Amino acid sequence: SSWTLKCLKRGSLHKGTMPDLWQDAMDHAVTLARKAGEIVRNALQNDLKIMCKSSSVDLVTKTDQNVEELIITSVKEKFPGHSFIGEESVAAGEPCVLTENPTWIVDPVDGTTNFVHGYPFVAISIGFAVNKMLEFGVVYSCIEDKMYTARKGKGAFCNGQPLQVSDQKEINQSIIATEFGSNRDPHAVDKIFSSMRKILCLPVHGIRGVGSAAINMCLVASGCVEAYYEIGIHCWDVAAAAVIVSEAGGVLMDVEGGPMDLMSRRVLAANNNIIGERIIKEIEAFSAVRDDEPVDPIR
Amino acid sequence: SSWTLKCLKRGSLHKGTMPDLWQDAMDHAVTLARKAGEIVRNALQNDLKIMCKSSSVDLVTKTDQNVEELIITSVKEKFPGHSFIGEESVAAGEPCVLTENPTWIVDPVDGTTNFVHGYPFVAISIGFAVNKMLEFGVVYSCIEDKMYTARKGKGAFCNGQPLQVSDQKEINQSIIATEFGSNRDPHAVDKIFSSMRKILCLPVHGIRGVGSAAINMCLVASGCVEAYYEIGIHCWDVAAAAVIVSEAGGVLMDVEGGPMDLMSRRVLAANNNIIGERIIKEIEAFSAVRDDEPVDPIR
Repeated sequence: SSWTLKCLKRGSLHKGTMPDLWQDAMDHAVTLARKAGEIVRNALQNDLKIMCKSSSVDLVTKTDQNVEELIITSVKEKFPGHSFIGEESVAAGEPCVLTENPTWIVDPVDGTTNFVHGYPFVAISIGFAVNKMLEFGVVYSCIEDKMYTARKGKGAFCNGQPLQVSDQKEINQSIIATEFGSNRDPHAVDKIFSSMRKILCLPVHGIRGVGSAAINMCLVASGCVEAYYEIGIHCWDVAAAAVIVSEAGGVLMDVEGGPMDLMSRRVLAANNNIIGERIIKEIEAFSAVRDDEPVDPIR
Repeated sequence: SSWTLKCLKRGSLHKGTMPDLWQDAMDHAVTLARKAGEIVRNALQNDLKIMCKSSSVDLVTKTDQNVEELIITSVKEKFPGHSFIGEESVAAGEPCVLTENPTWIVDPVDGTTNFVHGYPFVAISIGFAVNKMLEFGVVYSCIEDKMYTARKGKGAFCNGQPLQVSDQKEINQSIIATEFGSNRDPHAVDKIFSSMRKILCLPVHGIRGVGSAAINMCLVASGCVEAYYEIGIHCWDVAAAAVIVSEAGGVLMDVEGGPMDLMSRRVLAANNNIIGERIIKEIEAFSAVRDDEPVDPIR
């Protein structure tokens, strides 16, 4: 029958060169995330303990750079044709533009403020896109030792256990995750507080935030919170976790509705459209300089 | 010498009946906290997963009552003369007054909103006071499997490892923990948001909150955050953790300064007086009905 044919076709597609290659890449991402996590944990458990807190900012920068270097070097060796977008590379002047080419989108240490303080939510985030579509995501919450993984069309997992978003449809039975962020511009702070207050008084059960965009999104995927939103995040903070949320049954949107734009610095991840759209009504959005904004050559 | 004599006296004191009895009580508290943690974990991992989210409020109430019942029964059997202040007992009409009598101050499930959502910060909190002075505290963060313990004068520990507060003295290098809480009264919400905003813009590195007063205070003791404050908490939320903060080198105050009053529903725990007093300047305090307020007989 045509149904069998379709299944066979789908089956044979999965045996083709392309999907196998991405599974290889994903396996490699998991290995790299675990290795990176060990470096971050060691830095936290050994170096951070013996230094005064004021130098911990240098430690996080050094660790950030070391981990990104490790990942880039290993990926370039194994997948020489692939592209790379990473927080530290972009900070060093590399372009932040997503092309059709297979691209690794990496945050070596998500939750740097947490890292500096030993607050136990620090993640390595590795997303992977081809033809500008996200194919897999790996988020390793390395202090908790939780490895979140998702391959497009194949579900989301934490340490091998399948993830499922919350089935809650009532906003007043929900917990919403968000962050104050690092922006201290009064105009932005106004909007951030105003949105939070409106959401709190819907009312909701509570507002939480662990200080890492990637882990907040994994908490949506795990069903612990119904939604997470933030303005000011970067593509490397959310690329990997976006696949995890979506494969756990959740939805991704812009904070003003419509599809999520990976480069817009804005994200809303929710368990379903009802909760997502209810929150959108309360968010006082503002815009941030896009990740792919061309850099002014005079700067 | 008189020094030797003093030490001998102190040593012999520690071999007396009273201190040994409190150590016995503390060991028993740890055993009970672990047993209670297992009940809470089972409820979360088995019962919560198979029921719809809307019934989870009943599950937390049932678990709360079961755990408190377990602790009371066991304490009454082993220490028949001791008194008891527990969240569920007070909810059921028992008085909430601290006497000179050895008193167990218990929160069977701290972080009930977290429990309802499977958000992984839920604690069993057991404090113990004699002559109205706190003698020991046990906080078991049961999903993380972290057992925090402190005996007055003998230091604070997490899973046996000694705890030490952060040595940070600069407010703008600090993370502050607090909560939005469950109060949705507009006047209280005004004050809560206004205080948070002023603290955020001092500026500080960040504001966090895990949704459990006891665990927030243990994070102060662990040096992960510099301070935690909240208005609206109850004596059973903070009694145990107060000993842990203090034995880790931290300080406890009222949110308007001066000593902490266990029954006032207000707490500020800080790594030191400098950070504590800096925050007090920004907190817009309000008062809550005291825990030991005589209940109106007409109600």
